[in-house]
Amino acid sequence: MYQSFDVTARPEQGPPRLAMLRVEMSQDGLDGFLIPRADAHQGEYVAPRDERLAWLTGFTGSAGFCAALKDIAGVFIDGRYRTQVKAQVASDYTPVPWPDVSLATWLEEKLPNGGVVGFDPWLHSAGQIETLEKSLAKTGISMQAHANLVDRIWADQPAPPMAPAKVHPLEFAGESHADKRARLARELRAEGHRSALITLPDSLCWLLNIRGGDIARNPIAQGFAILHDTGAVDLFMEAQKLLELADHLGPDVRVYAPGDLLDAVDALEGLVRLDKGTAPFLLSQTLGARAVFAGDSCALPKARKNAAEIEGAAAAHLRDGAAVVELLAWLDAQPVGSLHETQVVSKLESFRRNDNALQDISFETIAGTGANGAIMHYRVSEETDSPLQDGQLIVLDSGGQYLDGTTDITRTIAIGTPPLEAKQAFTRVLQGMIAMSRLRWPEGLAGRDIEAVGRMPLWLAGQDFDHGLGHGVGAYLSVHEGPQRLSRVSHVPLEAGMILSNEPGYYREGAFGIRIENLIVAQEAPDLPGGDAHRKMLHWRTLTFAPIDLRLIVVEMLSAAERDWINAYHGEVSQKIAPRLSPGAKTWLDAATAPI
Amino acid sequence: MYQSFDVTARPEQGPPRLAMLRVEMSQDGLDGFLIPRADAHQGEYVAPRDERLAWLTGFTGSAGFCAALKDIAGVFIDGRYRTQVKAQVASDYTPVPWPDVSLATWLEEKLPNGGVVGFDPWLHSAGQIETLEKSLAKTGISMQAHANLVDRIWADQPAPPMAPAKVHPLEFAGESHADKRARLARELRAEGHRSALITLPDSLCWLLNIRGGDIARNPIAQGFAILHDTGAVDLFMEAQKLLELADHLGPDVRVYAPGDLLDAVDALEGLVRLDKGTAPFLLSQTLGARAVFAGDSCALPKARKNAAEIEGAAAAHLRDGAAVVELLAWLDAQPVGSLHETQVVSKLESFRRNDNALQDISFETIAGTGANGAIMHYRVSEETDSPLQDGQLIVLDSGGQYLDGTTDITRTIAIGTPPLEAKQAFTRVLQGMIAMSRLRWPEGLAGRDIEAVGRMPLWLAGQDFDHGLGHGVGAYLSVHEGPQRLSRVSHVPLEAGMILSNEPGYYREGAFGIRIENLIVAQEAPDLPGGDAHRKMLHWRTLTFAPIDLRLIVVEMLSAAERDWINAYHGEVSQKIAPRLSPGAKTWLDAATAPI
Repeated sequence: MYQSFDVTARPEQGPPRLAMLRVEMSQDGLDGFLIPRADAHQGEYVAPRDERLAWLTGFTGSAGFCAALKDIAGVFIDGRYRTQVKAQVASDYTPVPWPDVSLATWLEEKLPNGGVVGFDPWLHSAGQIETLEKSLAKTGISMQAHANLVDRIWADQPAPPMAPAKVHPLEFAGESHADKRARLARELRAEGHRSALITLPDSLCWLLNIRGGDIARNPIAQGFAILHDTGAVDLFMEAQKLLELADHLGPDVRVYAPGDLLDAVDALEGLVRLDKGTAPFLLSQTLGARAVFAGDSCALPKARKNAAEIEGAAAAHLRDGAAVVELLAWLDAQPVGSLHETQVVSKLESFRRNDNALQDISFETIAGTGANGAIMHYRVSEETDSPLQDGQLIVLDSGGQYLDGTTDITRTIAIGTPPLEAKQAFTRVLQGMIAMSRLRWPEGLAGRDIEAVGRMPLWLAGQDFDHGLGHGVGAYLSVHEGPQRLSRVSHVPLEAGMILSNEPGYYREGAFGIRIENLIVAQEAPDLPGGDAHRKMLHWRTLTFAPIDLRLIVVEMLSAAERDWINAYHGEVSQKIAPRLSPGAKTWLDAATAPI
Repeated sequence: MYQSFDVTARPEQGPPRLAMLRVEMSQDGLDGFLIPRADAHQGEYVAPRDERLAWLTGFTGSAGFCAALKDIAGVFIDGRYRTQVKAQVASDYTPVPWPDVSLATWLEEKLPNGGVVGFDPWLHSAGQIETLEKSLAKTGISMQAHANLVDRIWADQPAPPMAPAKVHPLEFAGESHADKRARLARELRAEGHRSALITLPDSLCWLLNIRGGDIARNPIAQGFAILHDTGAVDLFMEAQKLLELADHLGPDVRVYAPGDLLDAVDALEGLVRLDKGTAPFLLSQTLGARAVFAGDSCALPKARKNAAEIEGAAAAHLRDGAAVVELLAWLDAQPVGSLHETQVVSKLESFRRNDNALQDISFETIAGTGANGAIMHYRVSEETDSPLQDGQLIVLDSGGQYLDGTTDITRTIAIGTPPLEAKQAFTRVLQGMIAMSRLRWPEGLAGRDIEAVGRMPLWLAGQDFDHGLGHGVGAYLSVHEGPQRLSRVSHVPLEAGMILSNEPGYYREGAFGIRIENLIVAQEAPDLPGGDAHRKMLHWRTLTFAPIDLRLIVVEMLSAAERDWINAYHGEVSQKIAPRLSPGAKTWLDAATAPI
């Protein structure tokens, strides 16, 4: 079982550790120290050794940071974690609502006479530090790059991850790493850049067609790389992780120990491209005037999936869809009131594991029934585990990592007989999901230009949801992949080959949650008769195939086009998934995909 | 008759004037001189004395500029004017497609060894010159503020406009100018600004509750003002224009001659707020470090219409709608093929003038039949005037200026029996217009966040249009008023009280054009049962009432909600407008608004 339901916070350990940290701060002449939930690669998931924030404070959320001062220690957390943080940290820690209260504002209030605040320059990006220093400009408070004080006091800190890296076969990657390197090198030369720093492990893995096991849920190998404008790459990764890869990497990828990175960066000549928002502060500081903040070189090429990656994703989704359908059929067969959330999570994982292709789940499954479904980033644990009761909806958001692709699917399922109000909201969420699925739009538009389409049905009823409509998804890589998003804040033009999620939702606090999510890939739309011949347009191809709960649809609310979409989609689900099912699930699917 | 159909370009006068200009350039040691179609207030319409571009080159479009060098003179025009410019300028002038070719790129190519290019610092904003100088940074070309060379050679240049300003009564303005000044002064003090420059005449007129007649189509009085953080105003305007206003302005508005402005600005102490994009370069240069580019102080307060302004607009729209309905009824009664575009324009203006409340038309009526309708900014003239023929659509975009409000309405009308393809496109345009009209959206969103809603029906058919969905509209002021827009480029949050147009269109080059436009005003939406109680939302109230041509609707394409909207709208049109009509038009309206 990949997922655990352990309660991991131990609030009582926080205060003594904070005391030890303060001793170190005092010895080093610091008035404060920052402890982010981050590693040197700004990953969404971090290795156990990088769980400094949880180790120090007890807070286990996926985002946040602690600012430890002499007399107060603030734990900065966003809206998702306001409740959780209170249960997880001791009273020595003060939760701070962020970004409502900025770090600079808080520091200024707590250190009225100025002071020196230390930070680990590997764990913060140049952009973060620049923003912070700008906000602190007139306060007398200064930031100081410093050795990590938590590492100093954390006696049994786990070692860095050391999983062997593996070849990601050309069959799935669709382009050799030599071709990728040559392509990106041409771009560097065109821009007059001599090299590029690759600090994001998923970019590095994409570039070199390798995958790893350093981090749970993400098949990445941690490391850094320098891509030269010749196409050669210097790879900074423990040799121990690369034992299987010498032939694959070839002579143009030279391997160095991670500890050699800083000197190598220092020795670079000419302009060096790197990403301001994610590359460690220390690296951009080392580069000084040589640094060109032009974004991660791999970000857009990685986002534009090639045919092999798209067909791989499609294949992975059929496999994954069959597991989801088995789960849904099983769920429906259990007596109402007989199940808890954790059982659903375990059963779903077991269906996914029945297919030997599963490498990992792509994130911790969210299984929230009733009011838990309204908690957008709910993680079920032994403490929160709740029974699925008559009249509830359960939100089931999960995914798998397969060699040919990464999946991410949400279905909301009726338990017994939910109230009309929930069914009406479900229907609106579905209408938004359909509207985005059916959309066709002129080339050049970004997520923010089209996102409203997926919200409009809710808006018309005075409802909305507080997350983006969709995120990018990797090809057997991160389930959250930039830069493309279906979001009001995303100005990255959508391009053919980009895979995104389409996941409108609705959350009634204390009552129920709804989310419906398919993955979709943008592609060039064929010309339509009577359409504007000079206008290039894009549309979506749906990758996810699993039924949408017909019991939750108020059919009279749907337009003819929406009904047609549902029926056509369910026809495809049946045709693609039925052949992969157990007999019982097949029978269930026939009913679940009957035309409405 | 306000509108004229004269052909105003005289290409043959261009070359000798260009020769004269070059003599001046040479005497003053300039390698080039810029001639924008602009006045010191960056207005959309300019006074005859500011029509320097047309006088010099013959080009009469509403946007563009000439860069006259020793050997070449480029006339920079956008996509709307590519055809027109060729007919209007002599071969001594070279049309340059703009913004495809930027001025900086063009200058660099034409002045490879550097050079000095003069410009009138009253006619360009600080923002324009800053952008230009940045682009020219590495070229060796420099910009030089200079006396206007066209004014020097234009022997019979008209005098500045000198129309008397009038009081805009409190009944229509809804707030006294003392209250407005006090309100804006409070904001200045809160920001630590000592004063604000008001350089846009519509802002000045709004602030002081005055209107004028200096510029056709816009009831503005040209002038400048300094608003002090005390609420006092220094008004720089010819005393001759203010004869009727002494009592109205009162002692806190001190009047100075326009020629005193520069010295007064020079003498200002402390921080001075002004708008970078529209205030003359000369003024921001004079202020130097005192300049705070925080936008026009009046822009947002003016955009948020108060109750008197909204009810005034509503009243003006009923009056205007009745005139439009009379025109439509008359148009339908004429034999197919018997009319020309200019006759329609004249007749429409005469119906508007029948009501003595009309002060002016709010812009030159666009009446484009058949292929002319596909020219988005078509201006009918004696040369282009075309017959309305069987099977055509005519796009009729017009508006009126009334003391209580400004109108802007477009209707597209069937002449005889148009082809199915045109009716299908019309129906999609209508569906987009209805979708925006029906929208409800969370507070805080900008035009760009919701604009897609009005385009989606066209997108789904592979069609689109190349203009924004809507623009702000003034209260007996400019028919194009910022900062709010329904456009992909507008990030100004929509607020209650903002009046905008909702005008999707479709243009098939060489064949037909379609546009349907209503004015709408944003207002707080009442809570809906089952809606999110914590979410403040906005919706639209429609101001424009005139029927939409039912003969052009393919009813089967409409959803039930869209049909309901049309029928409800037509019901309101009938109820509000019928009592204002002649008996014949009333009969016609009954049929035109019958339920579908």
